[in-house]
Amino acid sequence: MKEKPIHVEQLGNMAIDDLEVEIVERKGKGHPDTLIDGASESVSRALCEYYLQKYGAILHHNVDKGLLVGGRSNPKFGGGEVVEPIYVTVAGRATSFVVKNGKIEQIPVGGISVSSVKKFFKSTMRFLDPEKHLIVDYKIKQGSTDLIKIFEKSNDMPLSNDTSIGVGFAPLTPTEKLVLETDTFLNSEKTKREMPEIGEDIKVMALRKGKEIDLTIAIAMVSGLIPDKSHYINIKEEAKKRVEDLSSRMFNMNVKVAINSADDYEKGIFYLTVTGTSAESGDDGNTGRSNRLNGLITPMRQYSMEASAGKNPVNHTGKLFNILAQRIADNIYDEVKGIREVYVRMLSSIGTRIDEPQIASVAVVLEKGSSLSSVKGSIASITEGHISKVGDLTPLILSGSIRLF
Amino acid sequence: MKEKPIHVEQLGNMAIDDLEVEIVERKGKGHPDTLIDGASESVSRALCEYYLQKYGAILHHNVDKGLLVGGRSNPKFGGGEVVEPIYVTVAGRATSFVVKNGKIEQIPVGGISVSSVKKFFKSTMRFLDPEKHLIVDYKIKQGSTDLIKIFEKSNDMPLSNDTSIGVGFAPLTPTEKLVLETDTFLNSEKTKREMPEIGEDIKVMALRKGKEIDLTIAIAMVSGLIPDKSHYINIKEEAKKRVEDLSSRMFNMNVKVAINSADDYEKGIFYLTVTGTSAESGDDGNTGRSNRLNGLITPMRQYSMEASAGKNPVNHTGKLFNILAQRIADNIYDEVKGIREVYVRMLSSIGTRIDEPQIASVAVVLEKGSSLSSVKGSIASITEGHISKVGDLTPLILSGSIRLF
Amino acid sequence: MKEKPIHVEQLGNMAIDDLEVEIVERKGKGHPDTLIDGASESVSRALCEYYLQKYGAILHHNVDKGLLVGGRSNPKFGGGEVVEPIYVTVAGRATSFVVKNGKIEQIPVGGISVSSVKKFFKSTMRFLDPEKHLIVDYKIKQGSTDLIKIFEKSNDMPLSNDTSIGVGFAPLTPTEKLVLETDTFLNSEKTKREMPEIGEDIKVMALRKGKEIDLTIAIAMVSGLIPDKSHYINIKEEAKKRVEDLSSRMFNMNVKVAINSADDYEKGIFYLTVTGTSAESGDDGNTGRSNRLNGLITPMRQYSMEASAGKNPVNHTGKLFNILAQRIADNIYDEVKGIREVYVRMLSSIGTRIDEPQIASVAVVLEKGSSLSSVKGSIASITEGHISKVGDLTPLILSGSIRLF
Amino acid sequence: MKEKPIHVEQLGNMAIDDLEVEIVERKGKGHPDTLIDGASESVSRALCEYYLQKYGAILHHNVDKGLLVGGRSNPKFGGGEVVEPIYVTVAGRATSFVVKNGKIEQIPVGGISVSSVKKFFKSTMRFLDPEKHLIVDYKIKQGSTDLIKIFEKSNDMPLSNDTSIGVGFAPLTPTEKLVLETDTFLNSEKTKREMPEIGEDIKVMALRKGKEIDLTIAIAMVSGLIPDKSHYINIKEEAKKRVEDLSSRMFNMNVKVAINSADDYEKGIFYLTVTGTSAESGDDGNTGRSNRLNGLITPMRQYSMEASAGKNPVNHTGKLFNILAQRIADNIYDEVKGIREVYVRMLSSIGTRIDEPQIASVAVVLEKGSSLSSVKGSIASITEGHISKVGDLTPLILSGSIRLF
Repeated sequence: MKEKPIHVEQLGNMAIDDLEVEIVERKGKGHPDTLIDGASESVSRALCEYYLQKYGAILHHNVDKGLLVGGRSNPKFGGGEVVEPIYVTVAGRATSFVVKNGKIEQIPVGGISVSSVKKFFKSTMRFLDPEKHLIVDYKIKQGSTDLIKIFEKSNDMPLSNDTSIGVGFAPLTPTEKLVLETDTFLNSEKTKREMPEIGEDIKVMALRKGKEIDLTIAIAMVSGLIPDKSHYINIKEEAKKRVEDLSSRMFNMNVKVAINSADDYEKGIFYLTVTGTSAESGDDGNTGRSNRLNGLITPMRQYSMEASAGKNPVNHTGKLFNILAQRIADNIYDEVKGIREVYVRMLSSIGTRIDEPQIASVAVVLEKGSSLSSVKGSIASITEGHISKVGDLTPLILSGSIRLF
Repeated sequence: MKEKPIHVEQLGNMAIDDLEVEIVERKGKGHPDTLIDGASESVSRALCEYYLQKYGAILHHNVDKGLLVGGRSNPKFGGGEVVEPIYVTVAGRATSFVVKNGKIEQIPVGGISVSSVKKFFKSTMRFLDPEKHLIVDYKIKQGSTDLIKIFEKSNDMPLSNDTSIGVGFAPLTPTEKLVLETDTFLNSEKTKREMPEIGEDIKVMALRKGKEIDLTIAIAMVSGLIPDKSHYINIKEEAKKRVEDLSSRMFNMNVKVAINSADDYEKGIFYLTVTGTSAESGDDGNTGRSNRLNGLITPMRQYSMEASAGKNPVNHTGKLFNILAQRIADNIYDEVKGIREVYVRMLSSIGTRIDEPQIASVAVVLEKGSSLSSVKGSIASITEGHISKVGDLTPLILSGSIRLF
Repeated sequence: MKEKPIHVEQLGNMAIDDLEVEIVERKGKGHPDTLIDGASESVSRALCEYYLQKYGAILHHNVDKGLLVGGRSNPKFGGGEVVEPIYVTVAGRATSFVVKNGKIEQIPVGGISVSSVKKFFKSTMRFLDPEKHLIVDYKIKQGSTDLIKIFEKSNDMPLSNDTSIGVGFAPLTPTEKLVLETDTFLNSEKTKREMPEIGEDIKVMALRKGKEIDLTIAIAMVSGLIPDKSHYINIKEEAKKRVEDLSSRMFNMNVKVAINSADDYEKGIFYLTVTGTSAESGDDGNTGRSNRLNGLITPMRQYSMEASAGKNPVNHTGKLFNILAQRIADNIYDEVKGIREVYVRMLSSIGTRIDEPQIASVAVVLEKGSSLSSVKGSIASITEGHISKVGDLTPLILSGSIRLF
Repeated sequence: MKEKPIHVEQLGNMAIDDLEVEIVERKGKGHPDTLIDGASESVSRALCEYYLQKYGAILHHNVDKGLLVGGRSNPKFGGGEVVEPIYVTVAGRATSFVVKNGKIEQIPVGGISVSSVKKFFKSTMRFLDPEKHLIVDYKIKQGSTDLIKIFEKSNDMPLSNDTSIGVGFAPLTPTEKLVLETDTFLNSEKTKREMPEIGEDIKVMALRKGKEIDLTIAIAMVSGLIPDKSHYINIKEEAKKRVEDLSSRMFNMNVKVAINSADDYEKGIFYLTVTGTSAESGDDGNTGRSNRLNGLITPMRQYSMEASAGKNPVNHTGKLFNILAQRIADNIYDEVKGIREVYVRMLSSIGTRIDEPQIASVAVVLEKGSSLSSVKGSIASITEGHISKVGDLTPLILSGSIRLF
């Protein structure tokens, strides 16, 4: 194995925390873009399971494109209905037949795709009935594989599927943590039990100016559980209070929370949905346009444009290298003293072993008194360790224990 | 009009140029993600033209989602064919009927969409025949508008369609310029005339380490114009030479150029396409996943995840604020002395006038000897000027004079 | 009201029964063509119910086109799975928005269509799970209606939607009755309870030569309920025996029954399906290509090519006149003495009241000793009575009490 | 080879001509149902050509299902436009990969389908531009074939693909000839040259009462060529006159011609289309619902419900037996003296050689003085001859010299 091209440098004298302004966003699990990310990823995982069970290996596939076309609905206090279903299609390609002893064996790519997408929606959305509210289609092109070749190569390190960039950083700032925690809290089982009116489609936007944070939250309220306007207002008040409590428990900043600020009670404008997502009434989604794999959209940070959802977890570095970079960053921040912020940037080379990146570039903001030379060695060694074991990520991804969006 | 919430601060002591590693990418105009961006934008522009001509106002629409499902082809030296067409669908919603004097008037949203997408492909790709190689569909939900209300409000400043982030920065680094120029050069009319074999689907990836740049270029070669392997190799050599010349003319760095590095002549692997794009053989695309509006993907920079393509140019701040931020950044860098780098971050607020952002946040890296206080005033005044005239962007966008991807 | 253009004549000296050869077919309720007929009709009925409930009138629609694209499956003894779902789309047009007091009101055509199709499949097929085995889409173009005009005209007799032919005849021959009864029996609740292995997709073909009938029956067997080959053979034997019993109970002919005659036990060819229909594995369907509304396909008879399923039950004479002709024929045969066979042919005229056909032409085969002059009066009067009350058919159709395929 | 089960009998004492009422219809080549028939058939033929050229044999396929979803248009005198394209999809299955020496070879089913459908429309409709007015998709499921088995069996008589009925009759009545000739004339090159305003979507309906014929013709007029109302009226007058001339040249009956009888000049209702077909504005089509292969819909005759268009011409008896029955009928009528009318009904048996029908049943109406015994022998021998050479039909079908709808 070649020596890894690991590079470490210093990024400057300021961390994001030192800046006076910070903007951070998260699209919750019921946001149209997040839903279609989830749909793509669920298809990839279901395919992996099938391939593994039937052939002992994950066969080639990439279903990292998708389209959710919003429906039409007429929510109203105490009820309403979806009048035009949401249309969801996952696109890409997948091995759909194998040649085994000169005979063709079909793989139920269509059935797997459709049922995994429905299962995903069912497990994600409490009030969206896939049977009534969804049209699930798929646009997955067929590919074939010669099983013998697969097995011959099954012990080799896979070769990169593309020339892709992965980026990760650590730690999260307080603002970032707040955004993540706000959605996590509002979409938690406990909150859903206590305030079932709160839909899954939640968008959190934080604007920090110095020590003050404006937290703008859009929550798709579930119309069937809200009998009237006063109930709606109560729920908003209660949610606001709870998020404020959460903020004050988390850290000592001045957090102003605004929920559904486009509401206009006099004009009868409320953010009501039948199913808990704006996808029911015209908001569309594309795979790869929701959160990055730390769960956030951080325009003032370094990050990767690559969609992780739906890419195969064996050799698509657009997925693997983003995960890898994040884990390296986390590990460096946890283990190496003297670091305020660390960014890891990885670049793969198509056709090259996935443990041989073009570069693994680490940049750090150091604590006062710390020096690059004092951290360089540990950083390089941590980075090298992770890269060598990049193959270990595959089962972790399949187990669902790695956040992707 | 309220005072603009403009904020200016210093970003730290290092510009991107000072860093030892830089990674920059561009997807050329024939890349599947860029093609579907172009398709979405072409539909938006064609709708605008129709609305303007017929009703004197741009009616509501957003078609910033899309899906390109790659086809299947069997290119070979001297020929080949597309065996399964590329499928393209643009999604979103558009005003498709208006109520005028109590009567309904239909708008040909479907016809406009399909023909503008085909026209776009025809004008973008020399060897892709929309008639033979494309299936163009659309998934645009209908909406209605009361014309009277439109006209009543036509002199007002539009209200933000969403809470969206826009980011822009200036100047480009030499590496960024090189990436942009490389594709611009390879996709120029002159190059296409002299080397027609070079397809429109070009992906440029630069990795700078200190003063050395590795430029990895993937070019979809046009099979019908390449009779054999030696011709293919010649074209690659020639393209490599020309890009090296370009690099050395541009600046004094050591640029190593690699073209189609996944080729394996012995195994018969060449990057051949019938139409000049990998979309013909299985590479899919989603709107919003190509370049940002400076033409680049810059994972080590601040930038916005928002798709500009396909959003309406009147009140969707996901489009307007990215353009605005870029123009402010350019203007500040050009006008204000003492600035090495400038980032502009804008945040809109749904339902609020588009010239009243939540914040316009400017961060600068200063030249040695320059101070924040000496530049703050000019920056604020430039920023304020642009925001006040945000409405002027609409006709510019329609004229096609603003780059979006 | 104008006098009805009723014409009565004699058809010749032979009834179908007198002929030595007779060929009759029926596609059971689970046949792909019958399923898509059912899908179209279920959408029409669900729309009618919605329109009636909400607006007190059946608004314009015709959804008498449709496409079922067969899936892919791998049934095997004791189990199997659908590997590619069946795709179903109903096409046509429907009033999807109304203008009421100058405001537009949306009608959930999409939601109604998709859920009525799924409900139809659920109620028709025991082992086809719409959630897992179907993709239900729709291609229904939107239309609009001015409610005021609807109500102004609501007491008028509707005007024909098209120039269409309707044909009916009576009575059924013994062979025809046998074909109808065979499927009715095999698809009866009792048979399904006693022999659940028998799927809903049954095709019955009878060839009568003199007094001998060859009854060829294709039954899609349900694989999950059939553990092995011997069980399969037993079921076939049992079904054969029961149909033979049925035949001998019905009349005194020599009926030879053959079930699944393409089976080849040695080559391992059995007619197995997971869901009880061949639609799961590649058999497609189009609306209007299943049985005529007497439940049969009778190539040696007069009959209409018009699809009844999916047409609106208010003024589409392609539906109404077929029903009308059948009811007139039945009524004439029941009431008028001396008639062996009666055919009724109706022709509408687009834009003319539906109770003013171009012609209502009745042709009879008379019993020996009977004369045309002796039956003409009663026939004309029965015919006239039915035509005058053509409007009464609409509620009957909605109630589901009239067979359409 | 087994003896053919040929049966001949007498049908009664009356031919259709003897009846007082006759109803006959034809849907011209531009009618939505005929267009989708043509689309299905064009795909089958294009596949056959490809298979033959590449593999020397017609591989398995059946694309006899299809859906045309009408568009939307706003024709007006002197112009107009298609505002929503027509959507066309052909469905079925086709061999899309073959295993050759253990390797998979792809067949461009998608490309062939889409381009053959467009070519068909281009050659059929003068004013319908596939590029602008059509969305052509396909829903053809993939199948595979083992080439070796194909070649092993290539000299054998093919086995029936299904249990199907074929029906043919001869001769045409004067009314039937008139309907056929009327459309042939109006859609002739000469008429199109002299009266280009006459669109291809023509529906002819004849009602004969005794010696009088009402000929109701619907012609989709081409709006772009008709500057105003008076021009429109002139064209109608001229077309009426020419059809009357044609009728009087053809035979001595009283023919009343009515064109576009739903027009209402005062209300501004004209039958105008931009492209010459009602498919542009909402009329949908399904394969198999246009004319039978004699070019007519004859509800008072015996005929087959089977769609001929799109079925493979090698072993699908739903196509072959209809053609065969028609040719036998024509041949019998031409060759055998003493016959007024002949009907041929064929029934195939799935899995049995196509030259071994279950029955070939011939029924004749004899001229006065003729007897069954005198014609039986010739009929049987003609029938036997045709059945033996059923395989000769395949190349004839491919050459396009056999009418299918």
